[in-house]
Amino acid sequence: MSKPTPISGFPEWTPDQRMIEQYVLDRIRSTFERYGFAPLETRAVEPLDQLLRKGETSKEVYLLRRLQADVDGPAGDDALGLHFDLTVPFARYVLENAGKLQFPFRRYQIQKVWRGERPQEGRYREFLQADIDIVDRDTLAPHHEAEMPLVIGDALRSLPIPPVRIQVNNRKICEGFYRGLGLTDPEAALRAVDKLDKIGPVRVAELLIAAAGATEAQAKAVLALAEISAPDASFADAVNALGVSHPLLDEGVAELVQVMQTAAEHAPGLCVADLRIARGLDYYTGTVYETQLVGYERFGSICSGGRYDNLASAGAVAFPGVGISIGVTRLLGLLFGAGALTISRQVPTCVVVAVASEAQRAVSNRVAETLRARGISTEVAPSAAKFGKQIRYAERRGIPYVWFPGADEDEVKDIRTGAQVPARAEVWEPPAADLRPMVS
Amino acid sequence: MSKPTPISGFPEWTPDQRMIEQYVLDRIRSTFERYGFAPLETRAVEPLDQLLRKGETSKEVYLLRRLQADVDGPAGDDALGLHFDLTVPFARYVLENAGKLQFPFRRYQIQKVWRGERPQEGRYREFLQADIDIVDRDTLAPHHEAEMPLVIGDALRSLPIPPVRIQVNNRKICEGFYRGLGLTDPEAALRAVDKLDKIGPVRVAELLIAAAGATEAQAKAVLALAEISAPDASFADAVNALGVSHPLLDEGVAELVQVMQTAAEHAPGLCVADLRIARGLDYYTGTVYETQLVGYERFGSICSGGRYDNLASAGAVAFPGVGISIGVTRLLGLLFGAGALTISRQVPTCVVVAVASEAQRAVSNRVAETLRARGISTEVAPSAAKFGKQIRYAERRGIPYVWFPGADEDEVKDIRTGAQVPARAEVWEPPAADLRPMVS
Repeated sequence: MSKPTPISGFPEWTPDQRMIEQYVLDRIRSTFERYGFAPLETRAVEPLDQLLRKGETSKEVYLLRRLQADVDGPAGDDALGLHFDLTVPFARYVLENAGKLQFPFRRYQIQKVWRGERPQEGRYREFLQADIDIVDRDTLAPHHEAEMPLVIGDALRSLPIPPVRIQVNNRKICEGFYRGLGLTDPEAALRAVDKLDKIGPVRVAELLIAAAGATEAQAKAVLALAEISAPDASFADAVNALGVSHPLLDEGVAELVQVMQTAAEHAPGLCVADLRIARGLDYYTGTVYETQLVGYERFGSICSGGRYDNLASAGAVAFPGVGISIGVTRLLGLLFGAGALTISRQVPTCVVVAVASEAQRAVSNRVAETLRARGISTEVAPSAAKFGKQIRYAERRGIPYVWFPGADEDEVKDIRTGAQVPARAEVWEPPAADLRPMVS
Repeated sequence: MSKPTPISGFPEWTPDQRMIEQYVLDRIRSTFERYGFAPLETRAVEPLDQLLRKGETSKEVYLLRRLQADVDGPAGDDALGLHFDLTVPFARYVLENAGKLQFPFRRYQIQKVWRGERPQEGRYREFLQADIDIVDRDTLAPHHEAEMPLVIGDALRSLPIPPVRIQVNNRKICEGFYRGLGLTDPEAALRAVDKLDKIGPVRVAELLIAAAGATEAQAKAVLALAEISAPDASFADAVNALGVSHPLLDEGVAELVQVMQTAAEHAPGLCVADLRIARGLDYYTGTVYETQLVGYERFGSICSGGRYDNLASAGAVAFPGVGISIGVTRLLGLLFGAGALTISRQVPTCVVVAVASEAQRAVSNRVAETLRARGISTEVAPSAAKFGKQIRYAERRGIPYVWFPGADEDEVKDIRTGAQVPARAEVWEPPAADLRPMVS
């Protein structure tokens, strides 16, 4: 057959990049678990009506169809699509299993999602997300909205990546302010403000007038709100100075003040109140988050989320939630592209045991067994070639040690320095820095 | 909305089952890495022509279609399907990246796969597999076929599951024997023998006569071969005693003898030569493996694979490989169903820090930070309710400790015994058995 080619939007890492990704995922998972989030995985598919319940994402869904569906007759699979985020499936899971869960329910979920979007730098059709969410029954205490950035700050600080800045806003501030101004379609206004980074203030003002029915003065006030940014709760003074009042605005300001005060107390410098943050997905109802890598702001947000009050509800029972999602593939793709992440070797292997002849392979196997039982990743050379060739096998993969079984005594060679010393598999230890591949 | 319901064939674990699954995956991954297998993930989708290249699996494929494909015009996505195993995508990956890889290439891959099959006990439409494979360029040394069961034996021995028995056969034995008998369609004969467990010897004999053109004597000989089973290389004597000869038969016997001798040397009792093992997928060309849980043989194989010489080839260059795959979802589904796996709590959390009043939440947050920084999974109580209610929050989740910040001195309570003692977050340690949830 001819050589296969990549499929645009479906990235595949090399094994050494995948080792870096696993290192990153292990760190993220460990942080999430230290905060008491329980793991969850949901199936990759949801009924189409679930996927289309909220938001403007309908055009991004991949539907499934069984190849032989016409032969076997309809199987109902035609109504299944791949999930495009982990929040909608989680809300469905909570509704389906509410009777078995303890509330508030804290879960993390690290899975691939799929969107049929046009691929571009940092945008994929298949990508990995790492989410945390907290949902409660009936009401959700606002301190959970303040906890989210602290968890994410901890998780991202544990990674070999640039420092981050979490930008926080509250939809109630925007909606309350727009209503206080007299605008009747606050959603249209929010959608216009959401485009600020892309099209700039002049065109957003035009859009506010054309699509959200704003006057020039109202458009100017909307933009003035969006320009407010502060590293602490002082953003509230700037909002008040604009002279608009509405009960929802007051509620939103009080909630954002709590988030900013908690952040200042527990993680100074992590959060900034940034009132231009809108988030496209329609299901957010309160606090919203985006995250910039300091020095790589051009990458856009690598971690986003917010509070949603109406995503999961069954009859009279509602399950309000708050969540945030790290775009792992996006983050790694950008950092790999910038050459900002490397690993010390291409394989987990620390030692290759040389093979003197095929008849003596069992001797080398036994050395390898002893080393592995002590937690040292070990391969046996694939052929009883000349030792020079066996050393090159290790060298090409960045494996630091080659082990030579001997009649009386074994020896181990550090192939970087050439130093070869007597060794016993029962006791030999590599330096800690050589035991596993190092990410930097 | 109405309460959502499960989708048949797409299992979802509860968070405590997912914790068990993660424990199992961590063990498997750690073993694979100790043998020097590098991690790989491939995209979930493959071009349909790749998926249909080999085997009888075409009817199981899920195709993708973008919901808005008709609006946006054709996107080429119609020719993409979800992968149904990890071997075909791996072979494609090797061909695509051959120039960048070092051979022999050892990789492991732990991912979901999808098949549009009719769901039944232990059979799913979405399930998780954990695969190892070794491929080489042009030729692959046969000792790799002997290595596979040792790695898998080690990986499965590290899990809290019953002991396993790996059944090994070699397709060359079957094909050579059938050809030596004078049968002209050995594949049809193999397909008949593959049904032995399902339909029994009488109906297999009928099938051999009807579909593979065998005489009654030939069918009897084919069944006699399939009945051979031995815990060591003595199977070869039983094959010889049947009095059939063919060069391919000799080759297969020699290869299986090597696998059985290596197994006897390094993992006595792990493997059995079982000449009825056929494996359905057409791409196997040599050694084949299946795996039974001792005492749960009725579950069928939980780990299967084999050698494939022709799956990955481009022009004159071939990449023969050997691999084996643990059916993780199948294994866990069966053990969960049998109540054979449990975990000591439903969340990772070891300590809940009580909150005296919302105004003092920051005090409790600081205790939690100190404990987390020392690796102890900690939550802060979600509300400043009466302490009895905060203790019940922990109790319902199986969390062993509740921490009470005090004006002078903190105290920690083991809620299983009721014992409450003074403690400092900077130095307090739970017993090792309480630090993480325990799987048994």
